[in-house]
Amino acid sequence: MIGPFDYPWLGGLFRDAPAADIWGPDRQMAYMLAFEAAYTRALGQVGKTESSAADAVAQQINAFKPDMADLHTGTARDGVVVPALVAQLKRAIDHENGCIHTGTTSQDVIDTALAMTLRDFNDLLDRRIAALIDTFDDLAARFGDAPIMARTRMQAAMPITFSNRLVTWKQPLVTHRVRLNRLRPSVECLQLGGAVGDRAALAPNADDISSRMAAELGLSNPPQAWHAMREGIVDYASLLSLICGSLGKFGQDICLMAQQGVDDVALSGGGGSSAMPHKQNPVLAELLVTLARFNATQVSGMHHALIHEQERSGTAWTLEWMILPQMAQATARSLAVAAEICGKITSVGSK
Amino acid sequence: MIGPFDYPWLGGLFRDAPAADIWGPDRQMAYMLAFEAAYTRALGQVGKTESSAADAVAQQINAFKPDMADLHTGTARDGVVVPALVAQLKRAIDHENGCIHTGTTSQDVIDTALAMTLRDFNDLLDRRIAALIDTFDDLAARFGDAPIMARTRMQAAMPITFSNRLVTWKQPLVTHRVRLNRLRPSVECLQLGGAVGDRAALAPNADDISSRMAAELGLSNPPQAWHAMREGIVDYASLLSLICGSLGKFGQDICLMAQQGVDDVALSGGGGSSAMPHKQNPVLAELLVTLARFNATQVSGMHHALIHEQERSGTAWTLEWMILPQMAQATARSLAVAAEICGKITSVGSK
Amino acid sequence: MIGPFDYPWLGGLFRDAPAADIWGPDRQMAYMLAFEAAYTRALGQVGKTESSAADAVAQQINAFKPDMADLHTGTARDGVVVPALVAQLKRAIDHENGCIHTGTTSQDVIDTALAMTLRDFNDLLDRRIAALIDTFDDLAARFGDAPIMARTRMQAAMPITFSNRLVTWKQPLVTHRVRLNRLRPSVECLQLGGAVGDRAALAPNADDISSRMAAELGLSNPPQAWHAMREGIVDYASLLSLICGSLGKFGQDICLMAQQGVDDVALSGGGGSSAMPHKQNPVLAELLVTLARFNATQVSGMHHALIHEQERSGTAWTLEWMILPQMAQATARSLAVAAEICGKITSVGSK
Amino acid sequence: MIGPFDYPWLGGLFRDAPAADIWGPDRQMAYMLAFEAAYTRALGQVGKTESSAADAVAQQINAFKPDMADLHTGTARDGVVVPALVAQLKRAIDHENGCIHTGTTSQDVIDTALAMTLRDFNDLLDRRIAALIDTFDDLAARFGDAPIMARTRMQAAMPITFSNRLVTWKQPLVTHRVRLNRLRPSVECLQLGGAVGDRAALAPNADDISSRMAAELGLSNPPQAWHAMREGIVDYASLLSLICGSLGKFGQDICLMAQQGVDDVALSGGGGSSAMPHKQNPVLAELLVTLARFNATQVSGMHHALIHEQERSGTAWTLEWMILPQMAQATARSLAVAAEICGKITSVGSK
Repeated sequence: MIGPFDYPWLGGLFRDAPAADIWGPDRQMAYMLAFEAAYTRALGQVGKTESSAADAVAQQINAFKPDMADLHTGTARDGVVVPALVAQLKRAIDHENGCIHTGTTSQDVIDTALAMTLRDFNDLLDRRIAALIDTFDDLAARFGDAPIMARTRMQAAMPITFSNRLVTWKQPLVTHRVRLNRLRPSVECLQLGGAVGDRAALAPNADDISSRMAAELGLSNPPQAWHAMREGIVDYASLLSLICGSLGKFGQDICLMAQQGVDDVALSGGGGSSAMPHKQNPVLAELLVTLARFNATQVSGMHHALIHEQERSGTAWTLEWMILPQMAQATARSLAVAAEICGKITSVGSK
Repeated sequence: MIGPFDYPWLGGLFRDAPAADIWGPDRQMAYMLAFEAAYTRALGQVGKTESSAADAVAQQINAFKPDMADLHTGTARDGVVVPALVAQLKRAIDHENGCIHTGTTSQDVIDTALAMTLRDFNDLLDRRIAALIDTFDDLAARFGDAPIMARTRMQAAMPITFSNRLVTWKQPLVTHRVRLNRLRPSVECLQLGGAVGDRAALAPNADDISSRMAAELGLSNPPQAWHAMREGIVDYASLLSLICGSLGKFGQDICLMAQQGVDDVALSGGGGSSAMPHKQNPVLAELLVTLARFNATQVSGMHHALIHEQERSGTAWTLEWMILPQMAQATARSLAVAAEICGKITSVGSK
Repeated sequence: MIGPFDYPWLGGLFRDAPAADIWGPDRQMAYMLAFEAAYTRALGQVGKTESSAADAVAQQINAFKPDMADLHTGTARDGVVVPALVAQLKRAIDHENGCIHTGTTSQDVIDTALAMTLRDFNDLLDRRIAALIDTFDDLAARFGDAPIMARTRMQAAMPITFSNRLVTWKQPLVTHRVRLNRLRPSVECLQLGGAVGDRAALAPNADDISSRMAAELGLSNPPQAWHAMREGIVDYASLLSLICGSLGKFGQDICLMAQQGVDDVALSGGGGSSAMPHKQNPVLAELLVTLARFNATQVSGMHHALIHEQERSGTAWTLEWMILPQMAQATARSLAVAAEICGKITSVGSK
Repeated sequence: MIGPFDYPWLGGLFRDAPAADIWGPDRQMAYMLAFEAAYTRALGQVGKTESSAADAVAQQINAFKPDMADLHTGTARDGVVVPALVAQLKRAIDHENGCIHTGTTSQDVIDTALAMTLRDFNDLLDRRIAALIDTFDDLAARFGDAPIMARTRMQAAMPITFSNRLVTWKQPLVTHRVRLNRLRPSVECLQLGGAVGDRAALAPNADDISSRMAAELGLSNPPQAWHAMREGIVDYASLLSLICGSLGKFGQDICLMAQQGVDDVALSGGGGSSAMPHKQNPVLAELLVTLARFNATQVSGMHHALIHEQERSGTAWTLEWMILPQMAQATARSLAVAAEICGKITSVGSK
């Protein structure tokens, strides 16, 4: 294991278990199979193949247990997992010719599985942002009137109350929730385009198939494939970084407030030091800053991935795979950490 | 001159005259003075100072011609232009004590001027995006049925029509317009917070003052200052990069289509070469890719600027100044260049 | 698993087994324990503790099998793994007070383990770069005289030979090897500073201890700790991105050469498509571009991590952990992929 | 004017006059003409044209005053200034056919002018880094023994002296000087390749011409053109960001030390506030952090520009033009600002 979210001990710092579950291989595989099953079922429903046979095949697809070593090899060869997966499905399941995958393409499968992942993940984000807003309100109720020194350009300016600073942590979350809920339909949407994105192989049933699939999979149904139009995904990545950035400001403020000599906040249960047992390090607050800078770095790669050449860019699409899941993990972890910090604040206010 | 948008000859490639006018120093100064005048006038209207005297002072503020050398020196010293500007105003204009600037702060002035700039710039963006959508529709009308070879992963895939590719250029612009119009109120908004952002010095007239100023300046009136909440601005920067990225995909596609051997598009008036007079370089299409990668790079810096410590970060705010205006120029130029390319397309389609 | 290098099927595309072994937890743990053992041994050698007892303790440290669940929990609490690891060592090993870890600090352990990792990894890089240079020389021998069309600004320019293009792939690797070998001493170096980096707790034996440890661990011995001076590490990260970038140019060129209509190169064994069995996608060449853009994105985060406040920045240091190992994986994978592509080239030259 | 280095008042904060002079249009034009003159002269020397006539033409080239409006228009059309410039030269100067520019190309002219610029700029950098090292030594002599509190993870750790922190500011500069002097030959080098970089049009005198030109222009003479091998330039950009990053750490530390409550440093002449006349803002120290984050952002774009397709990439090369000059300005300004801050330190040490 290499990635920070998966590493045995660093995972303690970076990993968010519910987010890792949503983005992990079990659910990804289930969603890719869900796409294939829904497609086969829809082919039956629109009369492209016999309906009850299609349902039987779809059930087997949903229950399929892939040979993972073969998928690993196949991805190395094809650059995507789908050709190997589809070959396994076709070998394992007794099916009418053309009723498994034919008419769709790898990108339909992977992007639709991503859309379903984002739907689950957005539920998590929305709940956590809402809860964190409440937590900040609780903090305001407990400590809002505490006087602190406002600092501008890192210099003491004038007295304010803790509430004044709190609003700069909470208010952006309120607007992020609005952003998130506006964005959801544009990323939680079916991808269905076929080989080159024009749905030509699905004619004349393309719209019928896509609306049935979208309904079954719980996704919105855009009028066309978005294979080569990535601005929804990239806009979404920007939002992830915005959320982390707002929490990074919170973390940075806490680090500054917890300094000896400033003493605007006291935290219980700081991190220990191997050399200085007396220290209480604001580890979680620092982590918020780290995660914010991590996502502020990553978001650039996602924007480069907008330059998605022709009908499908292997390079740009693959770059999304390297970056977006990690941005999501960092964001989920930030929200959890921010809430945890709030619970550790034991007193506020300049002495 | 150093910047690419201002350089004597590179400016020919990068500069967009209307955008440069909107972001240039004359308009910035006019808008900073407009803030100061509106503030003085509002002080009169709410009875903080004598109303007709305030109006007279406000008129002089609006007409004020600053000593630019002194502003240059002052900015070097103070990190912001406003202290020097306000000192000039106070020296030059006969005024009641407290009716010029007192109660506001540098950030109110600069961010409000930015908000007014963005309002003007967003008008430009909106017009250009709308026009470019129309231009793509015209292209579709002229060449939409032309057969081209779809290419996925840079390999010939299956025949499509030019319309199929066109939709991946046009459709993102349609959604960008929606994004832009949703975002406008959150960035075209008054900044008014005073020294530490809490409007304390404006009590009990703060809301009255801000609503009067917002109305006069043509801005929305948020319930509080956003000194240290930069997510609106950063979300906006992300949109600028999204727009450039979508156009970068268009430019990349044109470059690929114009290759000898592919010959999917013919362009009139390509760039000349000093060594090979026979060449017709797709300079403008390449420029779209460059501008997209430029903004994809810059957007990262804006996201880092979210980590805006305490009540005002000199470091993060100053970073915005270095990046955002250039992102805006790149975006405006991209839209102009994309339209120009469309006008140069003389034929489409694989032979 | 979330990271692209560890994911069950994506790992087929991204993972480099030898590089993953070097950066994996087993070796990291062995190197952290090696630091602790070398330190204990050195304390004995300089007479800070009894020498044979120290050796016995050191042997037990080297052989220690940590409780990984406890390390996970400890890292979550302390932000670093070392406090929990040291506590385990002290509980498990019968030792004279002060002869385990006392006088050093977490950063000494982790950065020294990193230095040992980089030593191993640089051996791998150096071998691979050298081998790839040879591979390019072989390509030149096989196909160097083949005529291709030079293309500037993506337009046909003038005929050249394949050798002319090959030199732009190979020559940068020659200079990267020089860079790598120059850089090695500045990153393959002991970290030893103690609590705040000044080696105060090691007086008057600090230099003696550090030279003994450096010799035992096979590292260079800088005159002082580099806790808060990260430019060596960041310079190194820049080199990783330079290597990937040069290979990205190679990959991009191959993608362009393999286009139908250009046909400057033929490759055996391209990737398959789930929708278009006739296609041979240049998956590996695309991957080189992806990995180059990945590292070009990441390198920015490493440069931000230079702003390492005071004697130790939790935020900046932690950001290195998230980024550098992935940059290394991407670089190792790029070198392997580039060599593999060369082996797939079956013919070169414009028809 | 749009760019921060050129803006009337922001220029006070960002502009470095000597650096701006080096990178400004007058010197750029002089260096492009110097290339053309040296080329013409070399053609005479190797006997490709009549020698004394070539010298006469070269003198006129050196003295040429271009029509700037025409260059602006030409750059817009051709994407590079050189075709228009060469056309002006040919029209204005009575010359033997083939003795102006023929055999070279735009990239030779522009990259060689860049190399000459870098030579001048590196002299400036080297002088400033050396002087700043001396300045830090002076600070050490004045305040080195002052006790301050070491802070790790932003928490008070143990007492150190100011010297301990100073070394983390100074030592990286010592290594940056080494890096700079190693890098110089690889960027201060002639570019001469002709239309597609293979010097075909210069045969059989290519090496003779290039060695004469390199000697005349004061540059190193690489064995081949580096049109499409940009790793030297990108490595250089990384160094610029490393320098800024090290100074950003210094600036961040000063901001933290100057906080009320910490009071580890006192600075004279801080920046004023329009709202709080009592404040002394550490504007210059903040600026160091801003410039470091600016360059840490930009360096990513330079690394993306490594992916320079085929014999010349219009997109990647143009991206360098947008980014590198600004990185250089930011670096020069950082060095000046760091020195200025040192001069403002009036006392050091915890009370």
